[in-house]
Order: sequence, then C-alpha cells, then structure tokens
Amino acid sequence: MPSAPTAALERRHRSIRDDLAAHGLDALVVTSLPNILYLTGFTGSSAIAVVTAERVYFLTDFRYVTTITATRGTPGECPSLELVTVDGSYDATLARLLGGNGWTRIGVEAAHLTLARHQWLTSSLASEASTAALVPTERIVERARMRKDEHEVATMREAARRLSEVAAVVLGLVRRGDSERDLALAIDWQVRKAGFERSAFDTIVASGPNSALPHARPGGRTITEGDLVVLDFGGVYDSYCVDLTRTVSVGPASARARDVFDAVNEARLRAIAAVAPGRSRFDIDAAARQTLDRRGLGDAFGHGTGHGLGIEVHEDPRITRRRPDVDSDDEAVAPGMIFTIEPGAYLPGWGGVRIEDDVLVTGDGVEVLTGVTTELIEI
Amino acid sequence: MPSAPTAALERRHRSIRDDLAAHGLDALVVTSLPNILYLTGFTGSSAIAVVTAERVYFLTDFRYVTTITATRGTPGECPSLELVTVDGSYDATLARLLGGNGWTRIGVEAAHLTLARHQWLTSSLASEASTAALVPTERIVERARMRKDEHEVATMREAARRLSEVAAVVLGLVRRGDSERDLALAIDWQVRKAGFERSAFDTIVASGPNSALPHARPGGRTITEGDLVVLDFGGVYDSYCVDLTRTVSVGPASARARDVFDAVNEARLRAIAAVAPGRSRFDIDAAARQTLDRRGLGDAFGHGTGHGLGIEVHEDPRITRRRPDVDSDDEAVAPGMIFTIEPGAYLPGWGGVRIEDDVLVTGDGVEVLTGVTTELIEI
Repeated sequence: MPSAPTAALERRHRSIRDDLAAHGLDALVVTSLPNILYLTGFTGSSAIAVVTAERVYFLTDFRYVTTITATRGTPGECPSLELVTVDGSYDATLARLLGGNGWTRIGVEAAHLTLARHQWLTSSLASEASTAALVPTERIVERARMRKDEHEVATMREAARRLSEVAAVVLGLVRRGDSERDLALAIDWQVRKAGFERSAFDTIVASGPNSALPHARPGGRTITEGDLVVLDFGGVYDSYCVDLTRTVSVGPASARARDVFDAVNEARLRAIAAVAPGRSRFDIDAAARQTLDRRGLGDAFGHGTGHGLGIEVHEDPRITRRRPDVDSDDEAVAPGMIFTIEPGAYLPGWGGVRIEDDVLVTGDGVEVLTGVTTELIEI
Repeated sequence: MPSAPTAALERRHRSIRDDLAAHGLDALVVTSLPNILYLTGFTGSSAIAVVTAERVYFLTDFRYVTTITATRGTPGECPSLELVTVDGSYDATLARLLGGNGWTRIGVEAAHLTLARHQWLTSSLASEASTAALVPTERIVERARMRKDEHEVATMREAARRLSEVAAVVLGLVRRGDSERDLALAIDWQVRKAGFERSAFDTIVASGPNSALPHARPGGRTITEGDLVVLDFGGVYDSYCVDLTRTVSVGPASARARDVFDAVNEARLRAIAAVAPGRSRFDIDAAARQTLDRRGLGDAFGHGTGHGLGIEVHEDPRITRRRPDVDSDDEAVAPGMIFTIEPGAYLPGWGGVRIEDDVLVTGDGVEVLTGVTTELIEI
C-alpha cells in the first residue's frame, strides 16, 4: 500500500529538525512506534529512530532489515536514513550510537521512554565518560502529527469514505435475535472487505441496557425489540485510523429514545458548527456539552466530545472540557487537524446514544469526512 | 467470558505481596495493562493498580467505573479491591494516593513507567514534602506471569485446541490465484468464528519469495504454483494468546523445498524433545539451532526458537540464544510455562519455512498444546 512519499517524509524531518535547533538539541531519540512510522514509513513492531540535523539513524533487528533495504529507490524511501542493525540488545546499540558521535544534548521522548531504558542509557553514557546528556522532551513529534499533511489528508479522506460505505451496509445488518458478538464479527468482516488493514479498535456493539456503557464489549446478549444499539467501529487504512458511530433503534423508538437521540444529534451538529481554525478545543467541546446540558442530559455525557485521529486512533487534539489540573494551554485547532465529534448520552439501566463523525479543520472552517445518514433508523 | 476466579486472583496477589515484603516495599504501582489484567481481571484500556499488603487500589475513570462495580459479587470479583475514581488526571490522582498513606518505599515498574510520569510523581511527592520514595523494580508481575496457574493453563489449552481446528480448516483454504491479503482475511474470519475475541497479531500469509521474510505483511501477491506459503496466525481467547504456524507447498514440493521443510521440522521436534522442567531456555534454543546448523541452514535461522505466550503474545520466557550483553541468568524453564517452538529457515529470494507449536512445561516433561498435521502439505 502507498506510504508517505519521500518529499512528505523530508518535510516532516525538517519540522522536527527546526524543533531540535530551537531546543538546542543535537539529536532526538524517537522510541514511540507511531512517531517512528510518521518519520520513516516503517510499519514493523521494533525499531528506534534517532533524528539529527543531517541523518535519521534507524535501529532495527534482523527481522526488519530486509523490509528497510527493500524500500530503497522506491517512492516511499525514507530520506537521509542510515540503517543500524541491532544484533543483541537495542539498548546497547543505542548507547553506542549516542556515546560515539560527540553529541552533548540528546532529546528523549519523556512520554514514551521507559524509566528502565532511561536509567540504562544514563549509566551507560556515564560509564563511557561520555559528555552526552539526555534531555526529556514533550510531544515534539506528536505536535507535528496534529496537523496532517497533504498525503495524510488524502489517505484519511479516502479511509473515511470507505468507512462510511461500510456504515451504510452495517446499518442494514442489525437484526433481532442476533448476538452482539455476531454483529461485531459481521462489522469487522465488512471493514476488512472494504480494504482496511484491520479494525482500528475492538468494535463496539452495545444493545439495550449495554448501550449505556460507553466502552461496552460485545457479548452474548441478543438484539431485542425496543433496544437502542450503539455501533462504534473503525478501520486502519494505509496506517491511518478512522472511527464512526451510529445508534439505531430496534423497532419504533420510544418518545424518550427519540428525545435522547435528537439531543445527541443536535450536540453533534453544534460541535461541528463550532469547528474552525483558531477555535479553542474546549469551546468545541462546550458547544456539545451545553446542548446536552440544556436538554437535561449534561450528567449523562461523561466523556469528551472527540479525539484526534491519525496513525493512532486516539491522539491530539483532545476535544474535551478543560481540566484545571492538566490543561494549561488553550490550544486552538488549526487547518489539517482531524478529530472525531462524538457526543453521547448514557442512562444506566435504560440505554444510551452516541453519534460520531470524523472532521477535518480546513483553511476556513470544517469538512465532515464521514458521510452516512444521521437520521434515527428504526429497523 | 469467564475471567480468572477470585481465588486465582487472590493467589496472584499473594505472590506479588511476598515479593513486596522481600524487597521491603510498601506498595507496587502497576502501570502495565497486561499486568493489571493479570492481577484484577480488568480488560479495559485505562487503569493503574497499586498493590499493598492489604489492598489493591484500582484507579480508573468514568468509562470503566461501571465495568468494575458490575463485577462485585461475581465469581471473577477482584479481592481486596478499592476503587479510586479518576476525575481529571491519572497522574494527580495517583500522586495523591501515593503521598497520602504514609508509605515510604513505593515500587514502580521500571520497564513500563514512562520517564514523564516518573518525573511528575517524583516532583509531586517532593512538593508535598512526602517521605515516599519511588523504587524502580524489574519484572515483579512478569515473573509471576511466566508460570501459568490452573485457570490459565485450562484457558490456553482450550484456546490452542480451537486454534488447531482453525489451522486444519485454513490448510484447506490455500488456493492458487488468491492474494495473500484475501487468504489472511479468510484466516482472520475463521479465527473469530472459532470464538476468539480477535487475532493475536496481524496474520502472516507469506508466499513464494515473501516467505523468506519472517515478518512479511500479506499483500497483493497471488499464490502461485511452486510457492511455499508460510501461514502464521493466532487468537486471543478469554484474554489469552495462542499462536501457530504451518508452511504449505503449492503443487509438488521441489527437492530443495522438501529438504528445508524436513530440516525445520526436525529442529522443531528436537526443540520440543528438549523441553522439561529445569532445562535452560538457551539449551532448548540450541536443540533447534544445532539441527539447522548441521543441515547447513544455521545462517538461515535468524530469530529465536520461541517466546512465552499468555496475556501477551510475546512474553517471557524467551527461547533464544544467550546474548552475552543482556542475558545474565540461565533461567531454567519450569512447570506451567507456556511458549512457542517455531524454528524457521529463510533463504532470501527463494523462500522460507516456519513451523510453530505452543507447548506447556509439565511436571515431568512437555505437553504440545497445538495439534494439527506437521506433514508437508502439497495443495
């Protein structure tokens, strides 16, 4: 499948290198696999990348050496890559590289480097009397990943189009008497048939009272007349995740079900309408939350309005309430950001509704990438 | 699905508490999700457990509170659990718990705790003038997990039985003209139909020259007369992973293909025969490796002979060569350990063979959990 073209990787490296220069770092040790994929196109399970002003040192073992060398001369070749084959321990190979290049300030990813590896590297560098110091950094690559580039937007637009087609099929698959588990399996099959590499997360089919659990696991419960059924599924397409939720009614919806559905759908629409470059992510959340508050469902909406999507199914930006103990910034959303809008209302013992789309922040507003009916379907 | 019974969880806690006492620790902060699942039965995606001599503090957020409270009074209820609801930041909630109980030595999992969280907790405890110190620990829960208990052995025996039935079906699905990707999808469908929650990893279908790549991703290549096809797939059953590989020949195998196949199969048999309580994991690896060496295929076998299986698809013990820079111990295998035996031979440009079973170390030898033909099938 097409990975990012060399020119896109080159631009990503440049952005990271600008950050390194700004922080006075000689190198950045990238241990997060999603970050490594972003910078190199590598989709395997074991590697470390070390980005400097001139090179991307790429440490991997026997299993993946052929995978890397096979990309040479292809349109997705990683520029300035220098392969370092690991024979034995990644830590030892990394320590040799870090200690042997005269670097003094070496950034590490504080959110991904484990305490064990940090201790090992620190003591190894000390024992070699290296002048190198490890400098914790925060979200250098993640920040770059928030704004999708042209290749990523094209990939995710196509992924969302395919997932919407899957959703249209899936809405026709809900049948009385089937178990949640069987329906989840049928959904996963449709996701794969549509060209996705895999599901982006464990598919949720939550029926009747289970629909009041935002993260229910599909079980043996049978879909029954009068149920609300929350269907939440996603796929990974060319390494990028998309995510979609619809809620259907089995048989005619009760007045209450229709009221909850309408409130959630209005919250969704108002949140989408609040998306534009420069808007605070907290304000987008508030647009959904105030709608549900006003309709008496504020307490029934316990999670955030949305989350960023990309190489990971949950990434920045988080479209949430401001949490005073965590969120210092008031980060505005910006063109190229892609995230979900997925308000919900959950009433324990009764049931719940969630409706979710994926949206792209454009130069002057918002593009909804997913497109499938948001009417309340009564099957 | 049945999770570990309360009595099994109780025994697991006891084993960890013995370790805490031996290390003079007041508490152990468990941040690894597989370790949390092992100790509590929790299968969600966000939680922290803090084990003390008397309690298991369980930190989770809104999304999972209902999941936890719903287990109360069930056969899988986690004993001595004290729920701590996280409203806002996990780090802040954890710091409050750690600082507010008069603990002085608090173990953390060095292989899982991130540098960022370690720094946050350390400075937070310091600013509260807490006497608590964080003590890095290594593999406390992982060591316990190596030897499966009765519940785990029963679960994995059943999982391996089901995966073997899947394998028998899969061997009949290989057809000339199908793409690797289509066959992988058909395998994943069979895995799910057999009652697995999901595939344990991305299924490998590697045909022709691709079979020389131990971790090939199934692509658009068409299965063709004369190919060797490596089929490597696994499933997660009641949260436990099993893993199986077979290699088939499309049409009559060439003399060389048969020779490589026989060598790999002999290596598999000799490695299995080397499994018994008290045997070094390096010796088990050597049994396979020496066989392939003797048959001129030593250089074609670049990976380890096997890996532990359980809540994770790759866990301890690793059945590998001793790596002088990493492996200080000569850890013997012991009853209750479950791991793969999966020698292979990979000849770049030509193709490869891998054959993989899952084995249990018993009181006096070995039980092969997977059971499907190891003859060279020519389809």
